[in-house]
Amino acid sequence: MRLHVINPNTSDDMTASIGQIAIAHVSGETEVLTTCPAHGPASIESYYDEYLAIPHVLAEVQRTEATTDGYVLACWGDPGLDAVREITAKPVVGIAEASMFAASAIAPRWSVITTLRRSHHMVEAIVKKTGLIERCASIRCVDLPVLACEADPDAVLSELAHMGKLALTEDGAEAIILGCAGMGGMADSLSAQLSAPCVDPVAAGVRFAEMLVNLNLQTSKWLTYRSPEHKTFR
Amino acid sequence: MRLHVINPNTSDDMTASIGQIAIAHVSGETEVLTTCPAHGPASIESYYDEYLAIPHVLAEVQRTEATTDGYVLACWGDPGLDAVREITAKPVVGIAEASMFAASAIAPRWSVITTLRRSHHMVEAIVKKTGLIERCASIRCVDLPVLACEADPDAVLSELAHMGKLALTEDGAEAIILGCAGMGGMADSLSAQLSAPCVDPVAAGVRFAEMLVNLNLQTSKWLTYRSPEHKTFR
Amino acid sequence: MRLHVINPNTSDDMTASIGQIAIAHVSGETEVLTTCPAHGPASIESYYDEYLAIPHVLAEVQRTEATTDGYVLACWGDPGLDAVREITAKPVVGIAEASMFAASAIAPRWSVITTLRRSHHMVEAIVKKTGLIERCASIRCVDLPVLACEADPDAVLSELAHMGKLALTEDGAEAIILGCAGMGGMADSLSAQLSAPCVDPVAAGVRFAEMLVNLNLQTSKWLTYRSPEHKTFR
Amino acid sequence: MRLHVINPNTSDDMTASIGQIAIAHVSGETEVLTTCPAHGPASIESYYDEYLAIPHVLAEVQRTEATTDGYVLACWGDPGLDAVREITAKPVVGIAEASMFAASAIAPRWSVITTLRRSHHMVEAIVKKTGLIERCASIRCVDLPVLACEADPDAVLSELAHMGKLALTEDGAEAIILGCAGMGGMADSLSAQLSAPCVDPVAAGVRFAEMLVNLNLQTSKWLTYRSPEHKTFR
Amino acid sequence: MRLHVINPNTSDDMTASIGQIAIAHVSGETEVLTTCPAHGPASIESYYDEYLAIPHVLAEVQRTEATTDGYVLACWGDPGLDAVREITAKPVVGIAEASMFAASAIAPRWSVITTLRRSHHMVEAIVKKTGLIERCASIRCVDLPVLACEADPDAVLSELAHMGKLALTEDGAEAIILGCAGMGGMADSLSAQLSAPCVDPVAAGVRFAEMLVNLNLQTSKWLTYRSPEHKTFR
Amino acid sequence: MRLHVINPNTSDDMTASIGQIAIAHVSGETEVLTTCPAHGPASIESYYDEYLAIPHVLAEVQRTEATTDGYVLACWGDPGLDAVREITAKPVVGIAEASMFAASAIAPRWSVITTLRRSHHMVEAIVKKTGLIERCASIRCVDLPVLACEADPDAVLSELAHMGKLALTEDGAEAIILGCAGMGGMADSLSAQLSAPCVDPVAAGVRFAEMLVNLNLQTSKWLTYRSPEHKTFR
Repeated sequence: MRLHVINPNTSDDMTASIGQIAIAHVSGETEVLTTCPAHGPASIESYYDEYLAIPHVLAEVQRTEATTDGYVLACWGDPGLDAVREITAKPVVGIAEASMFAASAIAPRWSVITTLRRSHHMVEAIVKKTGLIERCASIRCVDLPVLACEADPDAVLSELAHMGKLALTEDGAEAIILGCAGMGGMADSLSAQLSAPCVDPVAAGVRFAEMLVNLNLQTSKWLTYRSPEHKTFR
Repeated sequence: MRLHVINPNTSDDMTASIGQIAIAHVSGETEVLTTCPAHGPASIESYYDEYLAIPHVLAEVQRTEATTDGYVLACWGDPGLDAVREITAKPVVGIAEASMFAASAIAPRWSVITTLRRSHHMVEAIVKKTGLIERCASIRCVDLPVLACEADPDAVLSELAHMGKLALTEDGAEAIILGCAGMGGMADSLSAQLSAPCVDPVAAGVRFAEMLVNLNLQTSKWLTYRSPEHKTFR
Repeated sequence: MRLHVINPNTSDDMTASIGQIAIAHVSGETEVLTTCPAHGPASIESYYDEYLAIPHVLAEVQRTEATTDGYVLACWGDPGLDAVREITAKPVVGIAEASMFAASAIAPRWSVITTLRRSHHMVEAIVKKTGLIERCASIRCVDLPVLACEADPDAVLSELAHMGKLALTEDGAEAIILGCAGMGGMADSLSAQLSAPCVDPVAAGVRFAEMLVNLNLQTSKWLTYRSPEHKTFR
Repeated sequence: MRLHVINPNTSDDMTASIGQIAIAHVSGETEVLTTCPAHGPASIESYYDEYLAIPHVLAEVQRTEATTDGYVLACWGDPGLDAVREITAKPVVGIAEASMFAASAIAPRWSVITTLRRSHHMVEAIVKKTGLIERCASIRCVDLPVLACEADPDAVLSELAHMGKLALTEDGAEAIILGCAGMGGMADSLSAQLSAPCVDPVAAGVRFAEMLVNLNLQTSKWLTYRSPEHKTFR
Repeated sequence: MRLHVINPNTSDDMTASIGQIAIAHVSGETEVLTTCPAHGPASIESYYDEYLAIPHVLAEVQRTEATTDGYVLACWGDPGLDAVREITAKPVVGIAEASMFAASAIAPRWSVITTLRRSHHMVEAIVKKTGLIERCASIRCVDLPVLACEADPDAVLSELAHMGKLALTEDGAEAIILGCAGMGGMADSLSAQLSAPCVDPVAAGVRFAEMLVNLNLQTSKWLTYRSPEHKTFR
Repeated sequence: MRLHVINPNTSDDMTASIGQIAIAHVSGETEVLTTCPAHGPASIESYYDEYLAIPHVLAEVQRTEATTDGYVLACWGDPGLDAVREITAKPVVGIAEASMFAASAIAPRWSVITTLRRSHHMVEAIVKKTGLIERCASIRCVDLPVLACEADPDAVLSELAHMGKLALTEDGAEAIILGCAGMGGMADSLSAQLSAPCVDPVAAGVRFAEMLVNLNLQTSKWLTYRSPEHKTFR
């Protein structure tokens, strides 16, 4: 099996980190390709960033579609997920939905902790779209930028511990989802500090993609995710 | 007041039609600029089309931001609406939300009739995002492509009448929203055939944008719609 | 165009204030008639007040129906709105729904600040009925009576600023709706204090009514809002 | 115990019928007073009718408050229920909510069958307000006026059987609620025809009122249902 | 009428207390049998306890079915309620649902106060299942075990008063539901302390069961609650 | 890794079938133990069956807890899932939730097709509890008993094809979930007939359990799923 993990932003450091986590978590037989698009923003923190990144994510998928068995979008906004499902039948996993599914199987309710406060609304939109808002105890933010995960991971981890404790003691969460691909690799340490399970979204993403490939499940082409109509592009 | 109506697709015919409807419905003092992006798909029918169109919509907004008082996104998917609200404080109206607000003031429940069946999910997503799914009796589709609105308007109108009647008699709708900018101009005829009010989304969009400008209401920059962070774009 | 703005309570001072705001916000060609019913309570703060006021609001509508193009109910409880839509086909706007529509176009979530705490439930009922409870971050109360808006506007404005700040910093609101017609005229000052947009419900109401009239949209008579059956009244 | 059953409309025939059902269903020690207001519409089928009836319902309550232990509003719209709860602390039962509670204890989902199709929206509003919309399989209408229950009960019963069967076989209902006080007395016959339980709303209303009185539960005066503020009525 | 009140746990003290409350609240003609199962846990505080208790509750029902007119399950988890409705047509009342119905008729929103914090999720599940989550202001816990209600009622009552006050002042509750059968008998004292109505679930349960029996309403056997299929039990 | 798959009913044939599917779908290194309880009903079709089965499922878990890395409950009602999560920290997967997660990643909406019509309510309850009711297009039933899956698989498959087609063409489903462990093994054939993906719940269950074990995620013991309190069992 060959998975293609796409970091939708163009940070090479974060791409490398995501690649390491991905490889560390797949099973032995799985080959992992981790890339980022050739163009686009260095991080995704606003709707503006997201929409500028998506066309290049789509190009990455088209570039590798013939040789890939499954895709993982390694950004907690699952950017362009619906469109990727249109241009390939291979299973496509967003790390947001994968981490929510994993968390939902180990806790009645969970909280997502993401980066900047401005992204709260984007995160809430993903949770609602996935359909799991009733399982979400709260969304909290460390209020540090995405790239701080690479530049100052100690500060991020410290704030994660602070916000995670509040989520568990005040919001009704019983597990924590790390709401940014850049937080990949911090789950074990955080879990030990909080005495509650923490879900690494990149790890959950690659494992869930493996599961779909192994189950031989491909994206439904019944209606919504049919191939896009051929048309003029100016 | 100067409104910029952006047709997110690159069909010149549809842009011209939208411009005519927009001008016909604004008040005398309002100046209307109607354009489409320089690049992008000729119509928006899939998530793929939508995501490829949005960066060019954003560029259109940036091009005219200094001289515009309000924006109207003239596609019933409100493509890129959240991002446009980030890059300008001027009020930004999606024709989907404007037509839902208008319909909600004249009927307890309404139906949206859109083009291809594959777009059903996209339309439902907009209704949910706006928060008005309880007011939505149903989403029906004429199952003709967007550009048929220009190429074969009689066929579209005929199917609108058919589906509108089903919405009113079977689904519990009491008004109809035309769920495509290309259907602009068909509301009066359809309303007469159905004996129920039909909302033209382009007309509703420009009137609602005028309202916001006249009320001196600008997009909140409190948190979610702050200007995007400056960052490296590769 | 001739709009009839009805203040459902019988306070002449508040009626005059509402009339001033209404006239200040409509466009040049629009004629505005602002009245209050001949009978009824001086303010509406309980369900009891509301139900005693509504028959007289209905009488006001019947009195002017032949010469009016659209109605605005200038009380944030939208009292009798459904019944008014039954007895005229002219568009009828409640200032509650109009201000929620306006706020929903400039902020992801908003809070309503109303007068007495006892009215919290009535306000929540309107938000739910309109279908926008997901967009409502919170309902807060200045805990001053309706008529304090006329008698002691400084106290009301001061409490609005206090509650508005809490809504923005603690509840997730990004815009504020003034939840009482008597607060009309306080939006600009409050917005400046809070650095977030505040929606004047009376201004939003008349502008939204103008929009519906200009769009030539009348209340659907398909089913729910048909004319009431003729019957014996004892 | 002394219950006051108020028929909100001014039909003497219906008042008499309601009184008979009420007396037949209370326990031996309970005294029942059944009246209708001195003024108001002969039946309630529109919001207009409802709002004209409510002030007179309130007057009925005020007239008997000193000598009554509990109230039953005998119309499936529960007209003025919130206001009645403000002007007395005695328990007040709407027959709509009482019949929904009873049905919810004997079936996973139930349908309400009411009179005119135009009342569908009013019935749905009550179900939502009570909070039980998830338990409601459907709302169906016999499409006969309220007073047909007195004038032509056979026709009403026949249509009830027709609609009840559809609710059970097509909508997922497993019990039927008679959605009009005028249908009181038809439950046993209908239940026999349908082989499924049918809830008589008047009977449920008086029994539920007895229950509240026996439990010594009075309306909470904590906030929403406090006595209305004293104020000028013009 | 003969009611069988089943305490699902095997605490004889609690069974006796429940029996006293039940007898004190039924009307004169009603005969009450209060028992607990022959086997099972001494209290129900976890899902594990609940599932071990249910088969023995079912056996209790089967033992008395021929001579009973209605059942009351006297545990605020309504354990096994759906299964009991399958094995008898006699009305079956869970004290959770009965107390929610009663509270919903006297207050817009109410809070449930239960025992251990771990049971929060179980209580929330019952409220959601009943369909009344919108009416529920909060769920709070005294964080004392179920059997403390018998062993140390003063401590329980003191914590109820503390949590009840928080529910009323911070959560938006206007009435309190005692969320444990063991709290039966504490409602009057708590209500006096809080100046807000408190619902005794055992009292509400037996009165609601009487109501259903008097209304001659039996559990629907249309589909979900049909008798279980005969099959091999190993 | 050692997974224990528990068939909650006592049908040896079904246990064998489930075991075959489980072994066929896990990866090479995973060891699978498939058992059914020593006691209990031969199939689970009612709440009664379910509640009688659960204590024996719990005993199975306790019997093997020391030597098992993860559990799979192989019945589409996820019977006793919450209690199993209390008595072990090892991840516990219900095949219902696992198959819903898988389906949600390949289709916007899906339908569940289960066995007897009476189980419709049980299936809906699981979907709601998991939080995914918005993703569920419909629940349909082949109306054949559970054991028909073993005794007459052709009849079951034929009805699955019939109901699956209706789900796809009338209900808005774009994928099908086989809503009974006994239907395991029919997914490929059904998928080929329907031209839409079908999810085998047993296969999804074991793969999802593997994923959780590989991610080193254990059930949260923060609050709800703590070990049950020690107490007297009579």
